[in-house]
Amino acid sequence: MALDDTLWFTENPTADGSTLSLKVTGKLHEEQTDFQKIEVYGTEGFGNLMVIDGYIMLTARDNYLYHEMMAHPVLFTHPNPKRVLIIGGGDCGTLREVLRHPDLEQVQQVDIDAGVTRASEKFFPELCESNNDARAELHFTDGIKWVKDAAPGSYDVIIVDSTDPVGPAIGLFSEPFFRDCHRALGENGIIVQQSESPLLNMQILTDMHQAMRDAGYADVQTLHFPQPVYPSGWWTCTMAAKHAFKGFRIEDSVCKSFPTRYYSAEVHQGALALPPFMKEAFGKIK
Amino acid sequence: MALDDTLWFTENPTADGSTLSLKVTGKLHEEQTDFQKIEVYGTEGFGNLMVIDGYIMLTARDNYLYHEMMAHPVLFTHPNPKRVLIIGGGDCGTLREVLRHPDLEQVQQVDIDAGVTRASEKFFPELCESNNDARAELHFTDGIKWVKDAAPGSYDVIIVDSTDPVGPAIGLFSEPFFRDCHRALGENGIIVQQSESPLLNMQILTDMHQAMRDAGYADVQTLHFPQPVYPSGWWTCTMAAKHAFKGFRIEDSVCKSFPTRYYSAEVHQGALALPPFMKEAFGKIK
Repeated sequence: MALDDTLWFTENPTADGSTLSLKVTGKLHEEQTDFQKIEVYGTEGFGNLMVIDGYIMLTARDNYLYHEMMAHPVLFTHPNPKRVLIIGGGDCGTLREVLRHPDLEQVQQVDIDAGVTRASEKFFPELCESNNDARAELHFTDGIKWVKDAAPGSYDVIIVDSTDPVGPAIGLFSEPFFRDCHRALGENGIIVQQSESPLLNMQILTDMHQAMRDAGYADVQTLHFPQPVYPSGWWTCTMAAKHAFKGFRIEDSVCKSFPTRYYSAEVHQGALALPPFMKEAFGKIK
Repeated sequence: MALDDTLWFTENPTADGSTLSLKVTGKLHEEQTDFQKIEVYGTEGFGNLMVIDGYIMLTARDNYLYHEMMAHPVLFTHPNPKRVLIIGGGDCGTLREVLRHPDLEQVQQVDIDAGVTRASEKFFPELCESNNDARAELHFTDGIKWVKDAAPGSYDVIIVDSTDPVGPAIGLFSEPFFRDCHRALGENGIIVQQSESPLLNMQILTDMHQAMRDAGYADVQTLHFPQPVYPSGWWTCTMAAKHAFKGFRIEDSVCKSFPTRYYSAEVHQGALALPPFMKEAFGKIK
């Protein structure tokens, strides 16, 4: 069937010839910033929808999956995180989840484009409800340069919550960036990065593992989870650590002081259980 | 953007206003059977695509996720399965996975529409490679009546691999059908049924749990897994058993004699780890 494109938003197709469409009630916002084109639509069934350069960034209905999985697994894996840096993350959904951890002392977020945060404040206010937390600092500048300039050992956890590895985000998927992050991380430091679809992007995933190992990380782990509005509906994040992973703080995760909709200690364990085809692909990395 | 509908197949939208499109290379088959309209397309990135009444049934690229998860968890949960009934499953992908279990003695498949199997033999021959296994029987008749007429205790496992709960499949989601299955199952019998998307169809899922409990099953468990070409890309199957579940045969799963791409003992465990929002919804069922 053909969709009426006045009633439907259709994402730019993937290289594999697939695309998702959402039925819209109207366009709420359109803005060309210095970096990208930001659009916000109302949808019939997914709440508000943010689009950047024609690609779906998030909807109100399902963003909790991605944001919870970008924040909680890495923070329950580090033994005692206090200082967090988020690169990207302008919609502030990851920031909100990070700030649920009461023992954190400082969370800096560096997104190149203030326009994303301004649009999120207006159209996704629930994601921005913690932006005034005294521990949070929002900076709008180049995250790659920020990490390069950071004092060694500045952070316990770095979360790279970026767009796809094209356009402004491409440098965030490269060995030099991972190396700068390694230097900016403290002794038990961990970086986590969104790492695309296991069905569609295994090459990006294996390249990222290789680049992280080449950048000096001792251990790399991918977690998988559903993310319905991203291509294939199946997504990953990848953690790299200065020392070998020894599981996560299961008791702290079980006894966490805040609610979640997708994340739990059991779900965390399940997200680490990679299917054989992924294990095989990662097993070939030297 | 608007898609050229001569180059793209777009699925009938969900009630939530979402739909997936796949870029096609051409239509390979179209047939109106007594029950439904079957179409097969070639696609650019997903191999052959089967569509029934405008809804995506499977693609060559990603059907292993669904078929492995419909077959292996239930077969490694029953203590000693010998006799399996598949209702639906006409593409034969679930049948192929079931037949990988060497200790099974008999697998009967009952699909109402021979057209699906004929189309699969031609356009998805890899899924039909075990159809001539001496343990397999393919019947083309009404699965609901088949179960009603079955002798009590005829099967160890019943797998309901159906289309959505509309049209010919609606009776497969009802308490009377589950009750007939209960009677047709042996002492340790288990039924498993595809049970839609956790994001989009929680009402169907909770109704199914309720109907299974009302039909006399002692225990009900849902497993979740990615299924990219189904709505939301996130799917479930639900098992109901005559006795309380006591885990699955982990050692047999770890030492299984056949390869899988998605399923493993770890993935099985992970699929049982339900996110809090699902636990909460199922917790309300009496």
